[in-house]
Amino acid sequence: MAELQIDAIVASSLENVFYLSDALILGQRVVPTRLALVIWPANGEPAMVIRNLEEMQLRADSPIADLHCYVEFQESPIALLAKVLQEKGLAAGRIGLETRHLAARYRDELGTLLPRATFVDADELFDRARTIKSPEEIELMTRAAKATDEAIQIAFDGAREGMTEAQIASTMTGETFRRGGDGIAFIALASGANAKVIHRKPSNKPLARGDVVRTDFGAYFGSYFGGYLTDLARTAVVGMPTPRQTEVYRRLFDVHMQILAQVRPGATGVQLYEICRKAFEGTGVLFRSPFVGHNLGLLVHEDPILTPSSCEPLEPNMVMAIEPFVFDDGAMFHIEDMLVVTETGCRLLSDPHRWSELKCIP
Amino acid sequence: MAELQIDAIVASSLENVFYLSDALILGQRVVPTRLALVIWPANGEPAMVIRNLEEMQLRADSPIADLHCYVEFQESPIALLAKVLQEKGLAAGRIGLETRHLAARYRDELGTLLPRATFVDADELFDRARTIKSPEEIELMTRAAKATDEAIQIAFDGAREGMTEAQIASTMTGETFRRGGDGIAFIALASGANAKVIHRKPSNKPLARGDVVRTDFGAYFGSYFGGYLTDLARTAVVGMPTPRQTEVYRRLFDVHMQILAQVRPGATGVQLYEICRKAFEGTGVLFRSPFVGHNLGLLVHEDPILTPSSCEPLEPNMVMAIEPFVFDDGAMFHIEDMLVVTETGCRLLSDPHRWSELKCIP
Repeated sequence: MAELQIDAIVASSLENVFYLSDALILGQRVVPTRLALVIWPANGEPAMVIRNLEEMQLRADSPIADLHCYVEFQESPIALLAKVLQEKGLAAGRIGLETRHLAARYRDELGTLLPRATFVDADELFDRARTIKSPEEIELMTRAAKATDEAIQIAFDGAREGMTEAQIASTMTGETFRRGGDGIAFIALASGANAKVIHRKPSNKPLARGDVVRTDFGAYFGSYFGGYLTDLARTAVVGMPTPRQTEVYRRLFDVHMQILAQVRPGATGVQLYEICRKAFEGTGVLFRSPFVGHNLGLLVHEDPILTPSSCEPLEPNMVMAIEPFVFDDGAMFHIEDMLVVTETGCRLLSDPHRWSELKCIP
Repeated sequence: MAELQIDAIVASSLENVFYLSDALILGQRVVPTRLALVIWPANGEPAMVIRNLEEMQLRADSPIADLHCYVEFQESPIALLAKVLQEKGLAAGRIGLETRHLAARYRDELGTLLPRATFVDADELFDRARTIKSPEEIELMTRAAKATDEAIQIAFDGAREGMTEAQIASTMTGETFRRGGDGIAFIALASGANAKVIHRKPSNKPLARGDVVRTDFGAYFGSYFGGYLTDLARTAVVGMPTPRQTEVYRRLFDVHMQILAQVRPGATGVQLYEICRKAFEGTGVLFRSPFVGHNLGLLVHEDPILTPSSCEPLEPNMVMAIEPFVFDDGAMFHIEDMLVVTETGCRLLSDPHRWSELKCIP
């Protein structure tokens, strides 16, 4: 904040409000006009603007004691925010906003109410803070990744030709919940022609011999609508794979392991993306992903994203997902594992080794 | 659009993009920077700006054929939007934006790229369109309400002292999915002291004799992360209710039936809210809800909301939830049903009659 000469930041997104307040507020997910805001001054105590009916939750979940409550449909949350900023002597201050999140209409309203204030983009401040995970965050994400990984393994071990995509997905989510998961952030589980659409929901299509089956699954650990995320992908085939499928998957797994071996402080998207690009060049296999991995935490994609142009170096205590994927003959092959960057390399949070050969579903 | 002299509207929220394109796009829920936009000109064909990896889904799900794809992390979706508007001759047009949704930074970027364009708030245009449901929407929501209602009934019929909140919630969601539900929008299920916090997630607390147990449950029908919503609330008690609990619940149910009897075209929030306010005045029971009902559809709260100051009249083919709730002796009593407004009154989509007496969990 000192670097940007900001007098206060205002968090408005579910993720950053949780990051600063410890409270996951459902209204932020399902009622977009029901604003919840954290005001964090450079000097002084933080405050919150919340709906009066949320006060009980905040008193229970959050260490922030200075709560300002509005009555929904009667008072404007932004007017209350302006009042709090004014009371804190910030009416002519430099206020950092989440301008990638806060809707245009709300910033306009705030600007009208505080004409002497200056508003600056503060999203990157939050991004930077959330990039490096604390020991508590790493512990939680370690447990979460293990739970998700095991759930996928069990669901695929139990999968059989003729079962539907939805049945396998249901086992996967059930086993995740049994291991402490709270909600589904996303769940692609698609077979055969369905797998071409990147985030198709699990359908009642039965698995048929020859189908490539791919899942890309993320669960929330915290509440059913938010919290720390997992993100893992696995690929299998129903029956015996063709020689081509075996070869494409082997190359993908090999690339995956090469990337994992290069993950360490200082490594960049430029370097890691290139490993994958090179490996599939001239093979006829289509590698068209815009990245090969990403940081994750309260959002599934956090900075840095491992794009072909990213020069942002990895640092210790980043939690990353590495996920090369390719298309071949109308099927998608995808493998994704989670890890934490250490001082000298990385520690895996999920286990790719059980997926070293293309798994066959009997 | 003619009324507001708008040359084109741009939808950016998951709900309105779905409303115009028929495609529920996961990225809009979990990767906020992964914009998907529908451009709908007053004259001419609609177009979309989407991430290239979403093209397959759009080709499968949407009748919109004019797709403009950006490569994530390499191209700005807003720059592509500006280009499409320019190509359509709208660079100096009046463009309606969802300013309650589109983040400030994106509108700034668009304003810089199209300095001759005028941007106007178009949220209310969408709100108005979505307020009245089509026969297809009503049919879907009728099935959805029935499924959710039955699922709650089964979960509460099977509830026993000593079971945990999470177990009952799990039955409720499982039975909803079995009946065609696709996801959980929200699920409060709280007992005893937990029930004071308004949207507490189901915990491992066992139901204890004397606990008031309240659920407020909404499922998605469409996909696991979005679509048409249900919203129902039920209250029960573990063991025998106290005379006071019996009386509070009876009054609440009576108020609920009185409101339902008054629902018809022309009825307003002013009138319906007053029924509830009056009934609890001077009883010592705390009625502090900011509304007694709301329209619903792709969001859980759509216009009109039945607040004490809302003069917006109900109209045929609105789908509404009526939900009086009160607090007494630290417990929350809540009943909520869904209905569709008809020419002369309303047709219930869920069944309050099985909840006319405070349900006892043995």
